[in-house]
Amino acid sequence: MFAPLQNDTFLRACWRQATDHTPVWLMRQAGRYLPEYRATRAQAGSFMGLATNTDYATEVTLQPLERYPLDAAILFSDILTVPDAMGLGLSFALGEGPKFATAVRDEAAVAKLEVPDMDKLRYVFDAVTSIRKALNGRVPLIGFSGSPWTLACYMVEGAGSDDYRLVKTMLYQRPDLMHRMLAVNADAVAAYLNAQIEAGAQAVMIFDSWGGVLADAAFQTFSLAYTARVLAQLKREHDGVKIPRLVFTKGGGLWLRQMAALDCEVLGLDWTVNLGQARALVGGQVGGPGKALQGNIDPNVLFAQPHQIQTEVAAVLDSFGLPHTDAGTTGPTHIFNLGHGISQHTPPENVQTLVEAVHAHSRQMRKSSR
Amino acid sequence: MFAPLQNDTFLRACWRQATDHTPVWLMRQAGRYLPEYRATRAQAGSFMGLATNTDYATEVTLQPLERYPLDAAILFSDILTVPDAMGLGLSFALGEGPKFATAVRDEAAVAKLEVPDMDKLRYVFDAVTSIRKALNGRVPLIGFSGSPWTLACYMVEGAGSDDYRLVKTMLYQRPDLMHRMLAVNADAVAAYLNAQIEAGAQAVMIFDSWGGVLADAAFQTFSLAYTARVLAQLKREHDGVKIPRLVFTKGGGLWLRQMAALDCEVLGLDWTVNLGQARALVGGQVGGPGKALQGNIDPNVLFAQPHQIQTEVAAVLDSFGLPHTDAGTTGPTHIFNLGHGISQHTPPENVQTLVEAVHAHSRQMRKSSR
Repeated sequence: MFAPLQNDTFLRACWRQATDHTPVWLMRQAGRYLPEYRATRAQAGSFMGLATNTDYATEVTLQPLERYPLDAAILFSDILTVPDAMGLGLSFALGEGPKFATAVRDEAAVAKLEVPDMDKLRYVFDAVTSIRKALNGRVPLIGFSGSPWTLACYMVEGAGSDDYRLVKTMLYQRPDLMHRMLAVNADAVAAYLNAQIEAGAQAVMIFDSWGGVLADAAFQTFSLAYTARVLAQLKREHDGVKIPRLVFTKGGGLWLRQMAALDCEVLGLDWTVNLGQARALVGGQVGGPGKALQGNIDPNVLFAQPHQIQTEVAAVLDSFGLPHTDAGTTGPTHIFNLGHGISQHTPPENVQTLVEAVHAHSRQMRKSSR
Repeated sequence: MFAPLQNDTFLRACWRQATDHTPVWLMRQAGRYLPEYRATRAQAGSFMGLATNTDYATEVTLQPLERYPLDAAILFSDILTVPDAMGLGLSFALGEGPKFATAVRDEAAVAKLEVPDMDKLRYVFDAVTSIRKALNGRVPLIGFSGSPWTLACYMVEGAGSDDYRLVKTMLYQRPDLMHRMLAVNADAVAAYLNAQIEAGAQAVMIFDSWGGVLADAAFQTFSLAYTARVLAQLKREHDGVKIPRLVFTKGGGLWLRQMAALDCEVLGLDWTVNLGQARALVGGQVGGPGKALQGNIDPNVLFAQPHQIQTEVAAVLDSFGLPHTDAGTTGPTHIFNLGHGISQHTPPENVQTLVEAVHAHSRQMRKSSR
């Protein structure tokens, strides 16, 4: 049904296999910093108009790949499609973050929550299949969802927040309600990601964007445990091909050791984490178990001059160090990415500089080591 | 000149001396959650009207001490008074964060920066002396300032920010300008804190509220190094009494080991940090060197029910574990605090529950260990 994969560098790195360069993709790589994206969004009229239209979603997913030699594509969608399908009414005002028409703040609202009919998310699965076809085997396609806790944050707050007061009040005051909401979210996210896998996603990523706002202990109970509940339900392979699973907790650097126990292949890291230390902690040894690591340059580096971007890219790659190069076994690997989504203000030519620098420097590292 | 100190529990804990209970104070304890604060602020007309008036500043500093058996008072002021004295024009619109009339965004603006005449901050030093007198020895008074990096964030952004794009653009693109700004800030903060010490502050705290937004390596270069530059210039004692120095980097948990090298007595921690692990890392042994630790309950716990607040307080105290109890030597100690400032929406009666729970449970821990 789909064309054979030509560039498997990203997938090989997910499986901790040796690669001839460090693969790179960028969180939110299809986005507002690209003029062609803004043009398509203007046609679509709104963010959800874009995300729910198969042709538009396919078009914008492929836009960054037309410009840059990225090693993976990621479905154009939002982390909050699942609660939208639960009936909460997701919208995006221009220049603002996501908003729900209905927030979930009391016992009655929580009681009503259930795993939505996946047919309501058909537009996402159609987009996955359409994008996979349009990619024609160039690079693998990553599907994704928000984590159960991150969805809960938006569902309770109704929008972004700077103190998470409402969702944390529910957590501390009514942990029973919070647990019920997270259980529903976890089962819904698992069904959603499995349907993306069936539709053609070759890897899936869970964005725990707000895990890092939790206190130690609360993180393990209310975020990590439900990410684990999602992972336990995910399909391991599709059409005879294994599907790697990536987990990214923004601000989760202090809990890396505990995240190492997750049943997933890749851990995403933000820029506060020292990659060398993370590798020592969870990256594993050649021939042994471990996690591939993904990240973690500060997106604001993309506002510097080209030579400065090159220097910072090299510093991140050097901080991880030479990935293992033995084709016969598994070992520590690195997938280059930002530590968070790319800024809408990023000059597109600087992304070219970054991607080329990742490829050039990571090849050079491998050469120098011979 | 000042009355003798009656409750030295906080200062003893700063010096890693044994105490009969764990001292507690709360960041932003004099603030909008108190109706009496809101009444005084209404009289003063504005936040700066409050902060610059000695009588008002004294009155609101003492308000939480009238309600709760707190073990320390903290000067009522703002972390951004120093750049205001540099001429940037600080203001607070009701319900919003701080704003500067003039932002510092280019070479010319940075070149103009200099350590302000401390006479422009006379209102702060007058408030310190007035508060110290009004305290009449009940508990010690903490003076404070923002860290050089945190001041720079606001000076460049002109206000709060959610991506720190402007300040980080300067950091990555013009590190020379950033270093100059931070050097001026560090020298100004040192002069400012020394003047607070001379005016009567019995401890001083540096709030690195935005250190945690920096990438690994950038934090060390642009925040930690300049906090160290402040500390190197601080007076060690005044009137024959040693002055402990506290450093709090919000989101700095990953850099604790490096912060342990700072020439200060206490490290503040936010709620993401596991206190037991932090103690093992930097708390030191009985008779050996180490840092006192301050923190770190999530302020949102204060929205729970009394029994839940008590449970969470006990969990934080137990996570640190029993402080050393040997009166003859130094050893690991804990100062209870929030992991960040108290929310304006906090029910005042819940603060009473928290403070009493800290005292009761920490006394119980000491008793049970005998």
